[in-house]
Amino acid sequence: MRLSVFNVLAFACALVLATHAPLLAQDAGQAAASNGSSGINLMPQPTELTPGQGRLLIDGSFRVALTGYQEPRLQRAAGRLLQRLTKQAGISFNDQLETDASKATLVIACERAGEVVQSVKEDESYTLEVTPQNAHLSATTPVGVLRGIETFLELVTLDDKGFGAPAVTIHDHPRFAWRGLMMDVSRHFMPVSVVERNIDGMAAVKLNVFHWHLSDNQGFRVESKRFPKLQQLGSDGYYYTQAQVKEVIDYARDRGIRVVPEFDMPGHSTAMLVGYPELGSAAGPYSIERHWGIFDPSFDPTNEAVYTFLDAFIGEMAGLFPDEYFHIGGDEVNGKQWKNNPQIQAFMKAHGLKNTGDLQGYFSKRVVELVEKHGKKVIGWDEVLQPGLPKTAVVQSWRGPRSLAEAARQGYTGILSAGYYLDLMQPASQHYQVDPMEGATANLTADEKARILGGEACMWAEFVTPESVDTRIWPRMAAIAERLWSPEDVKDLDSMYRRLAATSHWLDSIGLMHHTAHAYMLERLTELQPTTTLQMLDSVLEPVKGYAREGAREYTSLTPLNRLVDSTPPESENARRFVRLAADPGANQGAIRKQLTAWRDNKAELVPLMQSSALLQEDVPLAEDVSALAATGLQALDYINSGKPAPDSWVTDQKEFIARARKPRAELLIMIAPAIEKLVDAAAKSGT
Amino acid sequence: MRLSVFNVLAFACALVLATHAPLLAQDAGQAAASNGSSGINLMPQPTELTPGQGRLLIDGSFRVALTGYQEPRLQRAAGRLLQRLTKQAGISFNDQLETDASKATLVIACERAGEVVQSVKEDESYTLEVTPQNAHLSATTPVGVLRGIETFLELVTLDDKGFGAPAVTIHDHPRFAWRGLMMDVSRHFMPVSVVERNIDGMAAVKLNVFHWHLSDNQGFRVESKRFPKLQQLGSDGYYYTQAQVKEVIDYARDRGIRVVPEFDMPGHSTAMLVGYPELGSAAGPYSIERHWGIFDPSFDPTNEAVYTFLDAFIGEMAGLFPDEYFHIGGDEVNGKQWKNNPQIQAFMKAHGLKNTGDLQGYFSKRVVELVEKHGKKVIGWDEVLQPGLPKTAVVQSWRGPRSLAEAARQGYTGILSAGYYLDLMQPASQHYQVDPMEGATANLTADEKARILGGEACMWAEFVTPESVDTRIWPRMAAIAERLWSPEDVKDLDSMYRRLAATSHWLDSIGLMHHTAHAYMLERLTELQPTTTLQMLDSVLEPVKGYAREGAREYTSLTPLNRLVDSTPPESENARRFVRLAADPGANQGAIRKQLTAWRDNKAELVPLMQSSALLQEDVPLAEDVSALAATGLQALDYINSGKPAPDSWVTDQKEFIARARKPRAELLIMIAPAIEKLVDAAAKSGT
Repeated sequence: MRLSVFNVLAFACALVLATHAPLLAQDAGQAAASNGSSGINLMPQPTELTPGQGRLLIDGSFRVALTGYQEPRLQRAAGRLLQRLTKQAGISFNDQLETDASKATLVIACERAGEVVQSVKEDESYTLEVTPQNAHLSATTPVGVLRGIETFLELVTLDDKGFGAPAVTIHDHPRFAWRGLMMDVSRHFMPVSVVERNIDGMAAVKLNVFHWHLSDNQGFRVESKRFPKLQQLGSDGYYYTQAQVKEVIDYARDRGIRVVPEFDMPGHSTAMLVGYPELGSAAGPYSIERHWGIFDPSFDPTNEAVYTFLDAFIGEMAGLFPDEYFHIGGDEVNGKQWKNNPQIQAFMKAHGLKNTGDLQGYFSKRVVELVEKHGKKVIGWDEVLQPGLPKTAVVQSWRGPRSLAEAARQGYTGILSAGYYLDLMQPASQHYQVDPMEGATANLTADEKARILGGEACMWAEFVTPESVDTRIWPRMAAIAERLWSPEDVKDLDSMYRRLAATSHWLDSIGLMHHTAHAYMLERLTELQPTTTLQMLDSVLEPVKGYAREGAREYTSLTPLNRLVDSTPPESENARRFVRLAADPGANQGAIRKQLTAWRDNKAELVPLMQSSALLQEDVPLAEDVSALAATGLQALDYINSGKPAPDSWVTDQKEFIARARKPRAELLIMIAPAIEKLVDAAAKSGT
Repeated sequence: MRLSVFNVLAFACALVLATHAPLLAQDAGQAAASNGSSGINLMPQPTELTPGQGRLLIDGSFRVALTGYQEPRLQRAAGRLLQRLTKQAGISFNDQLETDASKATLVIACERAGEVVQSVKEDESYTLEVTPQNAHLSATTPVGVLRGIETFLELVTLDDKGFGAPAVTIHDHPRFAWRGLMMDVSRHFMPVSVVERNIDGMAAVKLNVFHWHLSDNQGFRVESKRFPKLQQLGSDGYYYTQAQVKEVIDYARDRGIRVVPEFDMPGHSTAMLVGYPELGSAAGPYSIERHWGIFDPSFDPTNEAVYTFLDAFIGEMAGLFPDEYFHIGGDEVNGKQWKNNPQIQAFMKAHGLKNTGDLQGYFSKRVVELVEKHGKKVIGWDEVLQPGLPKTAVVQSWRGPRSLAEAARQGYTGILSAGYYLDLMQPASQHYQVDPMEGATANLTADEKARILGGEACMWAEFVTPESVDTRIWPRMAAIAERLWSPEDVKDLDSMYRRLAATSHWLDSIGLMHHTAHAYMLERLTELQPTTTLQMLDSVLEPVKGYAREGAREYTSLTPLNRLVDSTPPESENARRFVRLAADPGANQGAIRKQLTAWRDNKAELVPLMQSSALLQEDVPLAEDVSALAATGLQALDYINSGKPAPDSWVTDQKEFIARARKPRAELLIMIAPAIEKLVDAAAKSGT
């Protein structure tokens, strides 16, 4: 049936660009078209996929049987599968499992129990065979079953015959054993419901590590029974009780996801020092940090009371978190408090520690001993790669892939996060092209390469709230998840974007809020007025990249994040598509002209609306410039059509204007500016 | 600032009609415009509202103080107020209450405790004064405070200066003491989360009774510890535990809402008889009913074991539900099992019961005695109005207002539900015009009128699921809520629709899913393709009215409710607006033509898309006819412009076509057909 849709969509595409359909749907429409009759849009792409003939219809008679090894986690997984299918298809299913496998539509066969505490060694492989008659999912362990269930669910789509899954044979297993998402819940606290729905999303794209950044300068987020002042004075009341932590761990385990806690030290620890200032390297009192950046407060590595405290604290937390790894942070210590403290200076001299780096190494060594004493292995940011670090440690490379290669050469395991920072607002393509085995690591020996366990995306929380965080994680996270799961040669960007659009749509059915929160935030900006025109502007913008927002105005943790820049998705699908259209103005002139006209004319309604909203007034220059850019593009098309080059003075003026229009305003960028510039360049060369 | 928006919106309106903005936003835009500078859109309309000068700005410094009587319920309410404000404004607030009232932005003063168990006598009045400096909310009881908080929250909007509330003085109290929503959770089970979010919506529009229809032929939905087979065999596993029931009751009490349970008997009781067939009037076994309609199974009024059972069962449930009222149903007993049972016939003869109505009266009397024995007053559907009914009973009139008048004349209290059935898909205006004090009740004496306690909307669940139920309750529920709260003379339909649109938008921020579920269901119908064109069709359709769906095809409780008719809102805002436009083709010709052109041309993209979706194929004739109707409308405009009457043959043909197009297809109606017919009529008379 996909073929019959092809023509419709090709026709629809240009129209849709000009009107205001959800971006997602447009891209997905292309996906359906471009995949021709197979219509298989999976992300991550399975290791081996062989399309079959026909389709398994899914209707109210759908039944699931569990065979082989049984455990409650599998039964719960089967129950969730049925609920998810109900959400996807709008069909209620009999939620009693079928005991006679010959009568089931989907037979799940699990061979044996998985690990009691899931580790990097867990077998996650599975085989899924779908025929027009039924489907068989088999896996060695329950975690493999969980992975296969997600693949099965994503195969289910609606066509002209009904809901169903295409006949297919899939043999699948992950490329890397460690595939994570780090969520910073310190800078902006994220309630359990937000964490859990993102864990659902992680499971959907086959991630397996939830790295919980629980402590930083701006907040300490776990109940400690041993040291209650940590949360009482360091959290503003926003912390997880130990019962909630256990709930999240159980929730994640049910979805085949490990939970690795991080308590960042010796820096990034202001919030811990609020309750226990005597452990700091300078005289207190300390107060919860409200700004973003790198700050001075730090544990005092020369104070034995610090290690007494950490022994008890790590012991308590090691008991709470079952994972074999314990993240000790270790990043961004500026050493100022150490330099300014004569006692610390004296200690360094006495122990032959030449600089603050050496002192941090000493601290790390002591902390690592405590972590190991409590039965855990250490993971830390790449600063922990210091002499004396035990070989069991995992180095998390955030400053660049070189530290990953260096760690592997030195015999450490490592994971890559450099290139996977979701908060930097880079396009999915950019993250997708970062491979833990390329660049600095490419020349490692096979043994060294084997020490590269995978990677983790990082969602630092300076500029996200519980409301907006999904819009920053999804759908780009899925592209990184594919990089870490799928074979190294799965790297075609067009295919990735097509499948990403389909997956982003599918993630709606899982409960992620990236689309609904975006729509809601735009509605808020326009109060009771139509969002149509604002959507059109928003759809060609992106937030500024990297750390540009931190310098743009004085932000604190109390600054409302309710402006357009907080709503606009990190990546403009419309701009990306327009860039492709504009690359061939000859072939696509009609579509380009229609789109540019709509953008040019949008301003008339939009600007007065923006002026009536206190939150949108700052964005008026963007609306003006998008309109002017579109007008420039239309003029360029006229020159191109004329067959004569555009006058130099016009070209110069336009290029100056475009250069101005490319500059950020209100922390937003106009992403169609480069494509307009290309049209101007083409106009300059017209007829030559 | 609203004035400055006026022109924008007047301009935007026609354009928006032609494109695809959310309907809500359009209507709300009109609301903002039409209210001029006051911008006050409250629903229910307060009893007394005096606009002031200026506006209270709401920013991060907003603080709340509680003064006077204190209780945890008030503190929780203040906490929710801050969370709600955060959701509305995207601003995080200090969630510690301000102890110094002089420093608070909003000072809440409560005089005294309310009732231990909220009753119809609860004082719900409040006074709210907003000035540019601060706001004062005062009420006699915590329930009055809750009502005032909702008013305050709905006052908060965004303008060109920021978020704020207009200066205003409000004195408010309800017209009726009983303002309810009945949810049927038997025909389709509704999880606790669905119940709770709808209770949030109820609180927002100042309703105060959640009537929980817990038992019917299709399912028994509460855990009974005394008679566990009720839920074990009568619920398919979908029931509320007693802990969940208590949670819902507490949740409702926190929001000033009573919870009245209903166990429908002696009919509508198949699900109860599945576990206890010996209590039925015919030999068992019984099985859970899967169809809709009126069925034979009924308790046996002549069997003393029935009363022994009900004594214990009502005793258990009376202990679980604290409300003073206990709903015993009593509706739609067809008496067939009674007529066919010789023992029952003999009993009737022996006791002088002339017909099954008398027998039901006998049963009711016995059940009422048991309810009173367990300390409760009875409420029942209007069939319970039989000789011997104690005067403490409440009669719920569902068959028409006459029974309400009759009950009041006989000395009973009563509430009105006839005219408030949300499942019948009537427009908000129709419900709004039903007044408990008009029609049959208008001529009652003052004493009799005082017995009319209010009314309840009913959400019967044949055709709703947890996914879609919000789209059937909201926003129309708010119009009924206003009828029951606001003064009798608040009845202007234009004002109602303007404010309803604003309130519907506001309800999004409360977590109701009427907009998001609608959007999601349309996405599902189109799989990965753009929903734009389907939205345009959907926006001029409505589901068939009354009980027409039951006859349209064979439905069971297992039939998927995932078709277009299940997604389409009960009331088409676009059609309503077009009807107004088309009423004056002279003045609105440009807007009408633009809209008709868009509708006419929509088919080209839409029909192939529909053919590719198994669920949309049945709706293709609707798409074809909307296009053809629009073409007819455009031709009519041409005739009107020509200044000469359209030819008779054309008029005849078009009217025949329109008559066909008005007939339901796929259980949907094209709501613009009458307006097109008016254009044809105008064309027929053109120039004459």
